[in-house]
Amino acid sequence: MNKYYEEHTLNDTRETFGRTICEADIIFHAGHTGDFFPHHLDKEFCKKQPFKKRIAHGTMTFSIGIGLSATSINEHAMTYGYDKLRFPKPVFIGDTIRTHIEITKKTDYAKNDKFGLVVETCKVLNQHDEVVLYCEHILLVEKKHDEL
Amino acid sequence: MNKYYEEHTLNDTRETFGRTICEADIIFHAGHTGDFFPHHLDKEFCKKQPFKKRIAHGTMTFSIGIGLSATSINEHAMTYGYDKLRFPKPVFIGDTIRTHIEITKKTDYAKNDKFGLVVETCKVLNQHDEVVLYCEHILLVEKKHDEL
Amino acid sequence: MNKYYEEHTLNDTRETFGRTICEADIIFHAGHTGDFFPHHLDKEFCKKQPFKKRIAHGTMTFSIGIGLSATSINEHAMTYGYDKLRFPKPVFIGDTIRTHIEITKKTDYAKNDKFGLVVETCKVLNQHDEVVLYCEHILLVEKKHDEL
Amino acid sequence: MNKYYEEHTLNDTRETFGRTICEADIIFHAGHTGDFFPHHLDKEFCKKQPFKKRIAHGTMTFSIGIGLSATSINEHAMTYGYDKLRFPKPVFIGDTIRTHIEITKKTDYAKNDKFGLVVETCKVLNQHDEVVLYCEHILLVEKKHDEL
Amino acid sequence: MNKYYEEHTLNDTRETFGRTICEADIIFHAGHTGDFFPHHLDKEFCKKQPFKKRIAHGTMTFSIGIGLSATSINEHAMTYGYDKLRFPKPVFIGDTIRTHIEITKKTDYAKNDKFGLVVETCKVLNQHDEVVLYCEHILLVEKKHDEL
Amino acid sequence: MNKYYEEHTLNDTRETFGRTICEADIIFHAGHTGDFFPHHLDKEFCKKQPFKKRIAHGTMTFSIGIGLSATSINEHAMTYGYDKLRFPKPVFIGDTIRTHIEITKKTDYAKNDKFGLVVETCKVLNQHDEVVLYCEHILLVEKKHDEL
Repeated sequence: MNKYYEEHTLNDTRETFGRTICEADIIFHAGHTGDFFPHHLDKEFCKKQPFKKRIAHGTMTFSIGIGLSATSINEHAMTYGYDKLRFPKPVFIGDTIRTHIEITKKTDYAKNDKFGLVVETCKVLNQHDEVVLYCEHILLVEKKHDEL
Repeated sequence: MNKYYEEHTLNDTRETFGRTICEADIIFHAGHTGDFFPHHLDKEFCKKQPFKKRIAHGTMTFSIGIGLSATSINEHAMTYGYDKLRFPKPVFIGDTIRTHIEITKKTDYAKNDKFGLVVETCKVLNQHDEVVLYCEHILLVEKKHDEL
Repeated sequence: MNKYYEEHTLNDTRETFGRTICEADIIFHAGHTGDFFPHHLDKEFCKKQPFKKRIAHGTMTFSIGIGLSATSINEHAMTYGYDKLRFPKPVFIGDTIRTHIEITKKTDYAKNDKFGLVVETCKVLNQHDEVVLYCEHILLVEKKHDEL
Repeated sequence: MNKYYEEHTLNDTRETFGRTICEADIIFHAGHTGDFFPHHLDKEFCKKQPFKKRIAHGTMTFSIGIGLSATSINEHAMTYGYDKLRFPKPVFIGDTIRTHIEITKKTDYAKNDKFGLVVETCKVLNQHDEVVLYCEHILLVEKKHDEL
Repeated sequence: MNKYYEEHTLNDTRETFGRTICEADIIFHAGHTGDFFPHHLDKEFCKKQPFKKRIAHGTMTFSIGIGLSATSINEHAMTYGYDKLRFPKPVFIGDTIRTHIEITKKTDYAKNDKFGLVVETCKVLNQHDEVVLYCEHILLVEKKHDEL
Repeated sequence: MNKYYEEHTLNDTRETFGRTICEADIIFHAGHTGDFFPHHLDKEFCKKQPFKKRIAHGTMTFSIGIGLSATSINEHAMTYGYDKLRFPKPVFIGDTIRTHIEITKKTDYAKNDKFGLVVETCKVLNQHDEVVLYCEHILLVEKKHDEL
């Protein structure tokens, strides 16, 4: 699955498996991050909030949404960062999410001409095809001619 | 701890407790996200990699780094998103991280004048005071005069 | 949040956030403690028991009830012990609990006059305001004059 | 609870406590094994599959089914292996399973006459008494006369 | 293993298996209770504290110490409460704990003469046979003559 | 990755990523299965046992070993069962395991001629290339001509 910068094609897309978000996931994530805010963990409190129900942590939707895409390793690429991480809709217990990925940008990497930057626009979608998370995943990818 | 937009002061800083990252944290996060890449979980594989050691998932450093700051609720604020999420240095098993937060920007919110945007620049630091994660946390915060 | 013995006031009260107890919490606690008794884990068995439903472990209600109160550190205090831990009502899956804390006693500490004992009476309440756990948390708290 | 080879009696049976399988168990097992296939984790995907619902991992039914029997240690016995592991019916979220164990075979151990082989036929049953897992657990058990 | 009040004998003792407390246990318990105080989770902070090392949560030592004893069910008994819960020594990562239990008291139960109270004094010991937790577990146990 | 019975080739092999087994994995698996035997969890007890160290649960080596191979779905295949599951060597904390898979047998399926049986011999290997688990994974695989 190893792909050089040159082998990444603009507008290529892929989509991950889906995963149903459970109460247990929220308990897990609260427990791992220490964020026990009642918006995520207190059913009674949430009844009085705009969404009426417990909502997933944004950091969890991000971690699972990105994790879903971690199925094959590209040894020529590494994560440079993420831009414009947004949460347009909440994720509720019982929602099923999947991640849609599109290559939306390729640019040179100013600091080192052996690498280029590839931007994968990630949209995490729920079962109603609504975007619940948007971000731009920037990858630092080795260039092929490098090896000459 | 409720604070309106007007009550947020530029350059105000705070720092969280620290937390030592354990092997168990990496196992946990792999298990919760499904990212079992050998960079995080395979000691033998890592011996041949640049860092020589297993490294924490970026999504985990982000989740825990932000989670550390979730100690008191501000009912007038909600997360709008995160910008420029970067991972300048890896986090290794045994490192102790904490989050330094500074209010670096306040602007109007174009879509709704009852709210303003507050940017908290978050730096997750390790025990050597090196930045292992940088991001700009954008908060949507209610304005006070709203209530008039 | 540092408070000396002298700064603790009898009858002062505080109340924690709430937290909804999930099936996952019981699975977690069974897994962490090794107590897999069917009263907690076997729906069919429980149908024939007085409460008809699976009930939370007492040690879990205690751990979470006390954990809910761990939001700010007082460097001058440490736990001395707990007295009269009782479980007046069971906790069921889906119940939301919170902890009500009242300072009910202050006494000298016989073994060391630089410290005093402060008793916090903790009541864990469910969403119907019923007491599901009662205990007296004894804190060993440094006295102020100590520092002179 | 220590029993020598000679003290194991053909056709002796025992049955374990029951345990209700939860959504959290599946999340846990996926997280621990890395098997995030949608048959176990994606409610929407499963709606279009023969069973219509998420099903437990076979390795989990095996691990919990055998784990249920781990209540007392026999210092004279150790696991030699398992044969004919089969999964006649799926386990769904909410099912309550228990393990029925019968000693079905005793034979000499060719490689070392100080030990014998005892076969425990394990049937994991659900609340409808249907077999959801079958296997033959082979134990290597010390012989008594050994000690002479 | 069912035993009536009359069948409990003063000064009877039993001892559980041992269990080595790991870093993972502390992570788990912090995650389950929400108590992320640096005394338990921050190696650097602890270097400057009296014990120099991270210490287990008291509620964890209690939960695991009591959990270790949950190996066989007595249908005639239920937990009434715990008295004098104390933590004479800290538990560190790598310590191995086990629980020593002695029946130290039997009394009538004033509210219902069909039951009696049995007190089990529980001492959780580390590998150096030091008491790390002391408590008196009060059990409400059915009387035999009841059935006449 | 969909492959019919006819597309499976005898002696084809593949190998999974590796994964380092941690103390946390053993804690996890004990907690999920309820098997808290001291062979897995009590460092002091193990010092007096033949292996001197805590060993992984056989059911865990099996679950993780098989889980490592769950990277791509073949919609034409399902697990029929496992035969000859054996544990030739123990797995210790810190060992790194991976799974080697070879197609060793293909036969007709007596009960339904639309399917065939494919046997994958799985060997879980440690970092010294020693076999720590052996089993024969039997898959029920749809035949191609079926679709005609």
